[in-house]
Amino acid sequence: MTKLYKRSLSTKKSSTITGVNYATCCSGTKYKNRDDLLLIVLDPGSYICGCFTLSSMPSSPVIWSKKNNKKANNKKQKSVLLINAGNANAFTGEEGLIACKEKAKALSDLFNCDERNIFLASTGVIGEQLPYKEIINQFTYLKDNLSYYNFDAASSAILTTDLKPKTYSKKFKVCNKLFTISGFAKGSGMIFPNMATMLAFIFTDFAVDRDTLASLTKRAVDESFNRISVDGDTSTSDTVFVSTTNKENLKMATEDRLKALDKFYTELRKAMVDLAKKIVMDGEGAKKFIEIRVKNSKSIQRAKKICFSIANSLLVKTAIAGEDANWGRLVMAIGKTQINVQTKKIKIYIQGILLCLNGRGIEKVDEFALSNSLKNKKIKILIDLAEGNREFTSWTSDLTEEYIKINADYRS
Amino acid sequence: MTKLYKRSLSTKKSSTITGVNYATCCSGTKYKNRDDLLLIVLDPGSYICGCFTLSSMPSSPVIWSKKNNKKANNKKQKSVLLINAGNANAFTGEEGLIACKEKAKALSDLFNCDERNIFLASTGVIGEQLPYKEIINQFTYLKDNLSYYNFDAASSAILTTDLKPKTYSKKFKVCNKLFTISGFAKGSGMIFPNMATMLAFIFTDFAVDRDTLASLTKRAVDESFNRISVDGDTSTSDTVFVSTTNKENLKMATEDRLKALDKFYTELRKAMVDLAKKIVMDGEGAKKFIEIRVKNSKSIQRAKKICFSIANSLLVKTAIAGEDANWGRLVMAIGKTQINVQTKKIKIYIQGILLCLNGRGIEKVDEFALSNSLKNKKIKILIDLAEGNREFTSWTSDLTEEYIKINADYRS
Repeated sequence: MTKLYKRSLSTKKSSTITGVNYATCCSGTKYKNRDDLLLIVLDPGSYICGCFTLSSMPSSPVIWSKKNNKKANNKKQKSVLLINAGNANAFTGEEGLIACKEKAKALSDLFNCDERNIFLASTGVIGEQLPYKEIINQFTYLKDNLSYYNFDAASSAILTTDLKPKTYSKKFKVCNKLFTISGFAKGSGMIFPNMATMLAFIFTDFAVDRDTLASLTKRAVDESFNRISVDGDTSTSDTVFVSTTNKENLKMATEDRLKALDKFYTELRKAMVDLAKKIVMDGEGAKKFIEIRVKNSKSIQRAKKICFSIANSLLVKTAIAGEDANWGRLVMAIGKTQINVQTKKIKIYIQGILLCLNGRGIEKVDEFALSNSLKNKKIKILIDLAEGNREFTSWTSDLTEEYIKINADYRS
Repeated sequence: MTKLYKRSLSTKKSSTITGVNYATCCSGTKYKNRDDLLLIVLDPGSYICGCFTLSSMPSSPVIWSKKNNKKANNKKQKSVLLINAGNANAFTGEEGLIACKEKAKALSDLFNCDERNIFLASTGVIGEQLPYKEIINQFTYLKDNLSYYNFDAASSAILTTDLKPKTYSKKFKVCNKLFTISGFAKGSGMIFPNMATMLAFIFTDFAVDRDTLASLTKRAVDESFNRISVDGDTSTSDTVFVSTTNKENLKMATEDRLKALDKFYTELRKAMVDLAKKIVMDGEGAKKFIEIRVKNSKSIQRAKKICFSIANSLLVKTAIAGEDANWGRLVMAIGKTQINVQTKKIKIYIQGILLCLNGRGIEKVDEFALSNSLKNKKIKILIDLAEGNREFTSWTSDLTEEYIKINADYRS
């Protein structure tokens, strides 16, 4: 009991947001001996904003939540999030949508709220019918066990092939008032912009209207989750939810309000970037974290295309896994975009060491320093296009034999 | 001697084209104990047509050969092809271009032909300067050893990480006259449309004017080499050369001539498809050959995009390696194209077994038959979009731990 108390206290300290309560259990639909079902209930007055996969074959919970995301919720009632891991409820036809409808109906009855206040997410195997009745059977137990204590348990219940939970929590001040932002994410394969098999849940008490929160969420997703790639594959289930309880409000003039919003946006982006990087670090079989920055580009679009051509190149990712400063493969990856770059002006750096200049390799490279620096867990690749002043950064992981082992066996 | 004689005879029978002679040697620039330099000399009257990588960072020999490809060659003189393996002479700046110029000059002197009759190709590591003087030193030896006997040796000298040579030869009849088409290719990684680190050389004696040959070559490349993918990476060095000695001419009326050309095109395409498939079969670490066909599409473009999204999906390729009929990953790969397909109409087949219908999985699949059929070396994936009558087929390989091993170690 003492231990539990201590853990709860520490949880409360860092991540707790009054009015956000979690409960988890083992649903019996997939995993044994671990929780795989998560219920989150937010106090009346809260909002939930969603950002979803661009896949043209989205999962049923994505279809459900997208629809609700377009409606205004009922502010006088509770808001509910339900997430299960192990079964994506994707490509499950009419039955998949019925599963969503039934779950939402049961939750709506239990928490006395409109169905439009209920959001769903699922992750796991595609194409298997979700045993939703077994899930619904757990709702009373989950309701009885809701608590802000359960943040850590919540972050674990949503995992599939992830090696560890990915959490974030921070207190921040705006105009001398203290706010909290906290959240968690899952994802380690099928990771490519427009989000991965990637779920993320972020909560705050910073009061902000729903339209503003939706637009800030979209912007922050573009600057975080949409910059990562593990394997270039995009899931049918990607979802990011950002919620506010609206409990902590700042009363101020419009001008100050804009500054305050700016400050909040910075914190929201930080939370997402942190979780996005943690997803990459936990990439299936990944041993290295790779940052790719393309700078001095004519446009962000060009820089982005080159960034992701590198981030998704198997040959680049295997070279980094082999701790080989094989910049020839960077040249290949730039070239295959078919973007007309000025070969003779480009500079290529790995770990800050200049390797290419004037359209060819540098002759006197400190091979010892380079080789040593590639043993680091963090690898930095920098491409200077020398044609403008725009830039883009993306994050990825190396590609190891472990990735193949995991994915030749796992049904996702 | 007897053995050599026998081998030569058999070589002559299948692949020999009068007026196409090969010589190989070990250049000393990269490999030891194997030939890595190939000289091909064609009799006066021949043409060489090239088709090149679309990479915006092409290698020096690609730049050189592209330039010559735009000029008419001097028909009264010999035509020359020089290929080296181990060093791609790519991203080597001015020095790389000088290497090409010097090699061409030496060959032009040796064979008494214009430089525009000389075509070059290199494959191997990117970014290392080519020791071209060592290569030039071999020219006299190569000239003295030119022979149509050396077809097999030629097909081996161009290899890098390939496990085996890839050759093709066939006699075909047009209007009761016998012609020959033969050739060889290399490539096993960095394989993606717009050609891979892929070199192919095809020869015929079928007389055809250069413009026609160029257009037939482009069309056949689109229907063969541009349909394969091993790892989604595109090389700086991809080149296909098609040459004719023009020695066997058909004299006939224009109308018959068109029919004859059609027949020739069929043979040219067959040769390229055969070599393209052999490249995929020899994909780095590949254990399975995968054919992906998307049919009943509104347009070829849509079918093609879906084909390659599947062919390049790491998750699909690892599932096939694991002999897992994980069609959920096919759904994912279709969805990530963001092409608006009619989910409920799509049919998905693996090894001819229908797995999805009405936007969901089939319940009664003969899992035993399916599992058994996935043990085959050849895997067929069929997507029926049920929206039109166009189709596209692509070929790829599975992704195994071997691929990672090969590419974490090899400098390409």
